[in-house]
Amino acid sequence: MKATYMFGAGDVRVIDVPDHTIQMGHEFIGVVEAIGSDVRTLRVGDFVIAPFAVSCGTCVFCAAGLQTSCVRGGFWNDTSLGTAGGQAEAVRVPLADGTLVKVPVGEDADDALLDSLLTLSDVYGTGWHAAVRGGVGEGSVVTVIGDGAVGLLAVLSARRLGAEQIVLMGRHQVRTDLGREFGATDVVAERGEEGIAKVRELTGGLGSAVVLEAVGHRPAYDQAVGVVRASGVISRVGVPQYEDAPVGFGSLFGPNITLTGGPAPVRAYIEQLLPAVLDGTVQPGKVFDRTVGLGQTPEGYAAMDSRDALKVAVRP
Amino acid sequence: MKATYMFGAGDVRVIDVPDHTIQMGHEFIGVVEAIGSDVRTLRVGDFVIAPFAVSCGTCVFCAAGLQTSCVRGGFWNDTSLGTAGGQAEAVRVPLADGTLVKVPVGEDADDALLDSLLTLSDVYGTGWHAAVRGGVGEGSVVTVIGDGAVGLLAVLSARRLGAEQIVLMGRHQVRTDLGREFGATDVVAERGEEGIAKVRELTGGLGSAVVLEAVGHRPAYDQAVGVVRASGVISRVGVPQYEDAPVGFGSLFGPNITLTGGPAPVRAYIEQLLPAVLDGTVQPGKVFDRTVGLGQTPEGYAAMDSRDALKVAVRP
Repeated sequence: MKATYMFGAGDVRVIDVPDHTIQMGHEFIGVVEAIGSDVRTLRVGDFVIAPFAVSCGTCVFCAAGLQTSCVRGGFWNDTSLGTAGGQAEAVRVPLADGTLVKVPVGEDADDALLDSLLTLSDVYGTGWHAAVRGGVGEGSVVTVIGDGAVGLLAVLSARRLGAEQIVLMGRHQVRTDLGREFGATDVVAERGEEGIAKVRELTGGLGSAVVLEAVGHRPAYDQAVGVVRASGVISRVGVPQYEDAPVGFGSLFGPNITLTGGPAPVRAYIEQLLPAVLDGTVQPGKVFDRTVGLGQTPEGYAAMDSRDALKVAVRP
Repeated sequence: MKATYMFGAGDVRVIDVPDHTIQMGHEFIGVVEAIGSDVRTLRVGDFVIAPFAVSCGTCVFCAAGLQTSCVRGGFWNDTSLGTAGGQAEAVRVPLADGTLVKVPVGEDADDALLDSLLTLSDVYGTGWHAAVRGGVGEGSVVTVIGDGAVGLLAVLSARRLGAEQIVLMGRHQVRTDLGREFGATDVVAERGEEGIAKVRELTGGLGSAVVLEAVGHRPAYDQAVGVVRASGVISRVGVPQYEDAPVGFGSLFGPNITLTGGPAPVRAYIEQLLPAVLDGTVQPGKVFDRTVGLGQTPEGYAAMDSRDALKVAVRP
């Protein structure tokens, strides 16, 4: 079958491969074509969402809603699980009962709905995780760092959870405009000290009670520490591209800052987020601004890399 | 008057000084001898507890129970506030209405009660803050790192908040015995990898859902990261002797660990903790294992430094 392989940085190709080897893509939705003999809750023909982590659904961590720490699970492309990537014509899903979520839609669902359902496999659930871990609630003052798909959906999530003020830090106007549509009350394009000063000014000089960090590099961490209010929370969902960072008296400890977050157990959130997606109350799928066929996935990656596209959907 | 001065590391002396200059000591209780004209809630003769931070009681942070970030306050020995240390015959308290807590006891209270009241100025409130920030509740599995006064009172606090298992990591048996009296269910004397393995073994292989770090040096941080369970909380109250530490995918982020804590706003906790101290339900004052006169404060510091004493009370 055809599948997407990465041969090196920026070198992504679609090639013919034997079924079920190591492939790319950890966000996908689809229709069940066949099931293993141990599968109990799914049938051929079911429409399903696949979270970006494989999980058994029964271990202590799955029971606690932390499926990303499942003792039997793992991530797509994990050879020990025999899993493979979703940017392909078919994908084998281990631990299917625990991993997949059946959704009551047919194959005739329109593209906008499919895009929104696809966000539940990762980016919407990840933005939601940021907001939940950040403790966003009614009246919260929130700053979101990053205007990528996760940052924008962190904005949407914060709004859904009742945030009163949502400052979006981002520099790409097409994206920050979508951020405003999703609920951002303010946009700060400046970075570094200038950006920090702007956010502090917008938040009464005190800083932001909650900061959702959806980038993952050190400058974003430093920005989060700079804009957070004393006793506030920094919730990270951007995968850190660093290991060490300031946590001492001059950064987190002195002002009693809480640092939280991690890989989102999106599996835990799908049922909760699904109704408003199905009835159109929210349209997280708007983060997809381009669609390509499976043969064009390398071009899709290039478009995201050059910031020509925010997020690209692949339709095999 | 006589007061305690630090002239250098290990060089502590009691000397005659003019009243109200820079002095040592941030934990004290006493009787009001005189009040300023703006003071509204206190009278001469009142018995009071002085938290280790000066706070106005009315700003946004005081209102939120974060008196350590008071916009008008500060710490004892802060010359800009005109404050001074408590290891002296008298001390001037600025912002007295916001800072001091009146306690309904007379000067004839017995020494055990006075010791316990004194812990409310810092170490009990600090141990309590660790447990509160750590989210300790009914049935919690908690590990406390450090068998100093704060660590032992973090044990007491965790027990009061309903923890089911409390592993105390400490190497001084006199102290860990008091820890057991305060509620520790297990004691681990080992450090490093060995200590981590022991705690993991004691907690079903999963690690501790809550870790209270009451030391403040990097090995204690690393130990906290080593023993905490996925999705758990590390709550620090030991003042960090480091600024940078691991927070990336391999430490906090991957397993969704929350890092929290900071200087305890003990002022916020005194009223809550006071009744059980007054009626003797808890005796946090047991952490004081030696008493010296004001003239002997240098010997008191030396005894704590050599670990001959756990915590020394000074009675002027």
